[in-house]
Amino acid sequence: MLLHQTFDKILDLALEEDLASGDMTTEACIPPAARAVAHAVARGPIVVCGGPVFERVFAKIDPSILFESHALEGERVEMGRWLWTVRGPARAILMGERTALNFVQRLSGVATRTRAYVEALPPGSQTRITDTRKTSPGMRALERYAVRMGGGKNHRDNLGSAVLIKDNHIAAAGGIGVAIDRARENAPHTSRIECEVDSLAQLDEALAAGADVVLLDNMDTETVRAAAKRAAGRALLEASGGITLERVRELAEAGVHAISVGSLTHSAPSADIGLDFE
Amino acid sequence: MLLHQTFDKILDLALEEDLASGDMTTEACIPPAARAVAHAVARGPIVVCGGPVFERVFAKIDPSILFESHALEGERVEMGRWLWTVRGPARAILMGERTALNFVQRLSGVATRTRAYVEALPPGSQTRITDTRKTSPGMRALERYAVRMGGGKNHRDNLGSAVLIKDNHIAAAGGIGVAIDRARENAPHTSRIECEVDSLAQLDEALAAGADVVLLDNMDTETVRAAAKRAAGRALLEASGGITLERVRELAEAGVHAISVGSLTHSAPSADIGLDFE
Amino acid sequence: MLLHQTFDKILDLALEEDLASGDMTTEACIPPAARAVAHAVARGPIVVCGGPVFERVFAKIDPSILFESHALEGERVEMGRWLWTVRGPARAILMGERTALNFVQRLSGVATRTRAYVEALPPGSQTRITDTRKTSPGMRALERYAVRMGGGKNHRDNLGSAVLIKDNHIAAAGGIGVAIDRARENAPHTSRIECEVDSLAQLDEALAAGADVVLLDNMDTETVRAAAKRAAGRALLEASGGITLERVRELAEAGVHAISVGSLTHSAPSADIGLDFE
Amino acid sequence: MLLHQTFDKILDLALEEDLASGDMTTEACIPPAARAVAHAVARGPIVVCGGPVFERVFAKIDPSILFESHALEGERVEMGRWLWTVRGPARAILMGERTALNFVQRLSGVATRTRAYVEALPPGSQTRITDTRKTSPGMRALERYAVRMGGGKNHRDNLGSAVLIKDNHIAAAGGIGVAIDRARENAPHTSRIECEVDSLAQLDEALAAGADVVLLDNMDTETVRAAAKRAAGRALLEASGGITLERVRELAEAGVHAISVGSLTHSAPSADIGLDFE
Amino acid sequence: MLLHQTFDKILDLALEEDLASGDMTTEACIPPAARAVAHAVARGPIVVCGGPVFERVFAKIDPSILFESHALEGERVEMGRWLWTVRGPARAILMGERTALNFVQRLSGVATRTRAYVEALPPGSQTRITDTRKTSPGMRALERYAVRMGGGKNHRDNLGSAVLIKDNHIAAAGGIGVAIDRARENAPHTSRIECEVDSLAQLDEALAAGADVVLLDNMDTETVRAAAKRAAGRALLEASGGITLERVRELAEAGVHAISVGSLTHSAPSADIGLDFE
Amino acid sequence: MLLHQTFDKILDLALEEDLASGDMTTEACIPPAARAVAHAVARGPIVVCGGPVFERVFAKIDPSILFESHALEGERVEMGRWLWTVRGPARAILMGERTALNFVQRLSGVATRTRAYVEALPPGSQTRITDTRKTSPGMRALERYAVRMGGGKNHRDNLGSAVLIKDNHIAAAGGIGVAIDRARENAPHTSRIECEVDSLAQLDEALAAGADVVLLDNMDTETVRAAAKRAAGRALLEASGGITLERVRELAEAGVHAISVGSLTHSAPSADIGLDFE
Repeated sequence: MLLHQTFDKILDLALEEDLASGDMTTEACIPPAARAVAHAVARGPIVVCGGPVFERVFAKIDPSILFESHALEGERVEMGRWLWTVRGPARAILMGERTALNFVQRLSGVATRTRAYVEALPPGSQTRITDTRKTSPGMRALERYAVRMGGGKNHRDNLGSAVLIKDNHIAAAGGIGVAIDRARENAPHTSRIECEVDSLAQLDEALAAGADVVLLDNMDTETVRAAAKRAAGRALLEASGGITLERVRELAEAGVHAISVGSLTHSAPSADIGLDFE
Repeated sequence: MLLHQTFDKILDLALEEDLASGDMTTEACIPPAARAVAHAVARGPIVVCGGPVFERVFAKIDPSILFESHALEGERVEMGRWLWTVRGPARAILMGERTALNFVQRLSGVATRTRAYVEALPPGSQTRITDTRKTSPGMRALERYAVRMGGGKNHRDNLGSAVLIKDNHIAAAGGIGVAIDRARENAPHTSRIECEVDSLAQLDEALAAGADVVLLDNMDTETVRAAAKRAAGRALLEASGGITLERVRELAEAGVHAISVGSLTHSAPSADIGLDFE
Repeated sequence: MLLHQTFDKILDLALEEDLASGDMTTEACIPPAARAVAHAVARGPIVVCGGPVFERVFAKIDPSILFESHALEGERVEMGRWLWTVRGPARAILMGERTALNFVQRLSGVATRTRAYVEALPPGSQTRITDTRKTSPGMRALERYAVRMGGGKNHRDNLGSAVLIKDNHIAAAGGIGVAIDRARENAPHTSRIECEVDSLAQLDEALAAGADVVLLDNMDTETVRAAAKRAAGRALLEASGGITLERVRELAEAGVHAISVGSLTHSAPSADIGLDFE
Repeated sequence: MLLHQTFDKILDLALEEDLASGDMTTEACIPPAARAVAHAVARGPIVVCGGPVFERVFAKIDPSILFESHALEGERVEMGRWLWTVRGPARAILMGERTALNFVQRLSGVATRTRAYVEALPPGSQTRITDTRKTSPGMRALERYAVRMGGGKNHRDNLGSAVLIKDNHIAAAGGIGVAIDRARENAPHTSRIECEVDSLAQLDEALAAGADVVLLDNMDTETVRAAAKRAAGRALLEASGGITLERVRELAEAGVHAISVGSLTHSAPSADIGLDFE
Repeated sequence: MLLHQTFDKILDLALEEDLASGDMTTEACIPPAARAVAHAVARGPIVVCGGPVFERVFAKIDPSILFESHALEGERVEMGRWLWTVRGPARAILMGERTALNFVQRLSGVATRTRAYVEALPPGSQTRITDTRKTSPGMRALERYAVRMGGGKNHRDNLGSAVLIKDNHIAAAGGIGVAIDRARENAPHTSRIECEVDSLAQLDEALAAGADVVLLDNMDTETVRAAAKRAAGRALLEASGGITLERVRELAEAGVHAISVGSLTHSAPSADIGLDFE
Repeated sequence: MLLHQTFDKILDLALEEDLASGDMTTEACIPPAARAVAHAVARGPIVVCGGPVFERVFAKIDPSILFESHALEGERVEMGRWLWTVRGPARAILMGERTALNFVQRLSGVATRTRAYVEALPPGSQTRITDTRKTSPGMRALERYAVRMGGGKNHRDNLGSAVLIKDNHIAAAGGIGVAIDRARENAPHTSRIECEVDSLAQLDEALAAGADVVLLDNMDTETVRAAAKRAAGRALLEASGGITLERVRELAEAGVHAISVGSLTHSAPSADIGLDFE
């Protein structure tokens, strides 16, 4: 379920960018009474994501437009597959086309890349692929949704929803132990305490201070393996930094609970989806 | 000059996404009086873009933060180069870090990719590399700015600022000639009339109808060359669709005035920029 | 077609101004179940404009209100003509009355004045009457629409949608030629370049520099005629400044392509429209 | 004092309309470092209004712009008089010019027309000229301010701030007496109860029911005179509907407390104010 | 009638606070197709208020949710009474539950407390219990509505809708007489002039200056009685400050027209209302 | 640190409610040049909270107002203590007075009540007093801050920031075990999983399923004690529902980690704070 409250602001902003002064071409060329049927089509193999946003873009322009879905969110489809159909006033469909596609191309792009990472995990792996806060401005909720549709899991939503102690926090607090204590004291009892470390020595400190989760920052796989051994289940481990598709399997096998990948959201290429008019 | 009126909405949305509930970790670990100095650093060779946005993110959180710039907008820098420095309350800098980086990584990514396309043009070429409306939701003005900083030019801003007649408009209007006439009649006299064609026959129609600009949609270079010959300066030509870096030179040499490239904005990978605390 | 995205902000603002604290009188005097039928009526001869806004004001207050239109947008009607009818809860209709009328009185006022200018053109004239950016704050899209309904054409929408080089730009750039070159270089290839001149000497410069459109600022008709002769079709000419209804014919006959009239929007008297309850 | 909270929404909307995509011409032609000094000048005799809005438009674009005022709000000035000066970056001043002028031309137009009505009152008259709710959408607070600067008084601000019983309220309530009783019962004890009447018989009813203020709707002066005699100070009288400048004196002399004039705001022609650059 | 324009802003803000990132628990545990029926139930004796807000919270989340009301606004109900029922998608109902309850618990709390004050008046009393401007931020219109549903009356809505001269205004103006004169001069003729006094001497001044309403600030009942005698109907009297339930009767009997009570809105305990799922 | 991003929306809404039409009384009575110094004073013993909001209310109205603080956030003060001082234009201070007080009275009220609960804990207790989501609409971030200033801790911020499985989730999922598994699978690895139970049997299920936190809903102290014994540290326990000040000590001694109290925010009486002008 994708609550429209989580994405209406960015959707309204996108419509405003493109349509605040109307559509000069469409108003000149398309008769007001003309009707159209248009199908969103995958122009290549993709993991589908964004149907509810696609529907809402057109509903915002003209509530009389009918929407039909031909694919499940998160479904992998081949080139040529019809994804969604809209029927209604031709003017309104033409006016929403670009905005709608801009959303679903990005969301399907994120879902597709996420799926690639998830499928790089060893079969039966318990390790999760997660996003980060490196999302496109205004698109946090939607891109986190796309990660889920791609088969990934979400990391914390924002700076107010969970604790993640980084190097600067450690330095300012005066050490890992103090930082973890303070965070534990301040955070809601519903939150785990995660601490970033960049060496095995720091890992030991974090474990000793009772971190619930330890983020292993930019470590090579060898070190990650050593870390997992040392942690021995006392804390969940998350690998992050410089994660390529190639390293996913070995990191999972090294024993981390989560692998967080910024490029799922900050660098996923747009999925190629077009809108074909009947 | 980047007027803040053109980007404050998306910036406020981004801050809200990350900070609407404060920063649990920073408030727990960083003493209120702690101060910090942090430098944005290029982690690879990039074309720099986004300084004014970077500055404003921090100013919005705490107006007392001082900003200093070490690079020009649009400047190509090498790995390790300091780009911008912020000085002020450590809490505020930590709270703005991710949001600021999310913006500049995307903008520098767009500028860097645009520069690559621009440099693929033959020396002295008059052809321009332009963006499209395939921008990230809410980021239209910023990404168009990044294209300019990369050395590209902007295409029309939105559906209300210029005419671009596409296949569906032609079909609905009942032909290229009629569509162009209607558009000319309706558009402000400050606008040129652009028409998309996908064959040389259509090109002839567009020229006959007095199109000011003709968009050659998804044509191979051979056909583009023929089109340029046929147009013979009667209209500006724009090549679009399936533009790879490799084709830029030959398209330019084929004689088009503009090459529009959607991937400048929809698929540019994020530029790697970090924030180092002193 | 009047996309509600182009006017909902000002409409919401208007409703908020009048109704943020409810309607004390109506709530006291009108029973909740009372229903009413009310007709908007022209109290004098006018050019009708604003039906879609009238409808939406009431729909925003109570979606159950039914709307019927008796006049075409842009139609000239005589005194006493019914324009639109609303049926529904009496309270809601009374609450929306003033706001709805404020919009349509202004829009019909603009359309009516525009029609007068258009009809002052010589029969068969190709010259267009256009608006300017001297619109009421927040009403740009609606007033431009009213100008179209009155039979006029729109000038550029805003500072970002087309180039118009004025005296201060020329002075700062160091001359008409430089200014036009820079503008050409920066503007999208979809835009024409317009330059304002106040003498025939400046006109020559602008033509030499390849201006697509030249705005003749505050020139007497004699000079305009000379300008048209000199331009000889090399650029479109626009007359602007001090345009009275009386001068329209002679300016058109002098050979300008467009006559832009600020008073269409900044000084059109309100059209007299009332709301009669059955 | 003009609290910016009362006008920032419409001001932001106006800036957004004109500058959401930047200023293509200014960015092309004006060097970033260029500075300018510009003076708003009355191009005819006007009553000045809008200085604080003029100042704020520029401050919103660039807080470094300096503002100086040469005229008092509400002061009558002759043609050629300098009203306000702005100094700062040339780009920012050019970008704000049109928006700033659109506000002050309208506000000074309203103030100027109001002054004409006020001066049409007999010397020493206690009668007040007031506005109505027939204001431009989004401009209610500003136009009411302009009326005050013109020497007029404000009527009620909106539907929630005072009671004004009109014919439809009377009909639905079942008579003037009932309507007044219900309104008295519901309205805050800080509000007077005003009732509109269109005959002397209705006036009697309203007086009998204890109306504090009676609006005499569209009555000729003769009838107004009779009404004043009949009311004999038991209620304040307001004349409204079809008020021309010529009737002001006789209506005042007929003994009304207030004359409300819709055209002060809905049809005041724009005051001619220009911006001259040094 | 509760116009949604008067409360949608605070409602949207409340939904955003709770749902901007979705509902993690519900999305994990509740199947998308699950449906539910839930009844809002009074957990104690209360005066019911907020049905239209309750309905709109759920409609905003999912327009397909059906709403049914079992109690009148302002009705006193016993513990266990069903107030409202919602039927629809279980996810949407669970997501809106807390936000909807937060509104109605507060509004019913205000209505319940107001009713207690109203019932403390002597039988047949003409004295009114009113609210003040001590409302919860963003809830002014809703809490004023709750006061009305509780049987109270509203005081002025805001600083722009009526005059209330307080001690600081008197001091700055240089006396009660001057302050009242200036206020009379400036206020719309639809407003009464209210003046706060803290002694009988000040009361005399206010009466002499023609105050329409006099607020007796923090006076003991004895003094209020004396004030009423002295005013002798020349002005309406309002008692305010330190009003406990116990003092209501004696203040009313002392002859004041209104008793204004800040605690109706600033300190009313939440009414206990739960949501029971079938 | 209280980031203004966390409260500016509700603050702007509050200012708009009170000042959208200006301040009629102040503008009439207070000369524009008048200056004032005003001190916020505790009218009784309270725990102080809201200084940064108090400051920002006035800064929003007039940035030239100077603010000085005499009390720490969270400090307990006696009656008569000066809390904050503002100096500046008298008009602006009078205009902001009520809005500023409305905020700080509520926030200090919440902090004061929270302190009472915290001080009811046995000396040296590790149990925490927490808030709930029963906050005033739009005030979530501020009221959570007030709870912290009172010495309490925050529960989860919103539905998207942590998991709390309630009876309806359990019923729909088909049991506690399934619900916990699904939540664990979906929630970020930074979140604990909390489950509400209303019997010891359910507690056993929750523990068996690996709940991190168990909410004991409306249990008597005896049962809570039994629950703590049975849990034996395998999960954190939270007592909730029907928590009076009197039960705090015994619940803490029964061994719960947290006691969550809705009335901290939904029913805290306003703290009495006045603004005294020098």
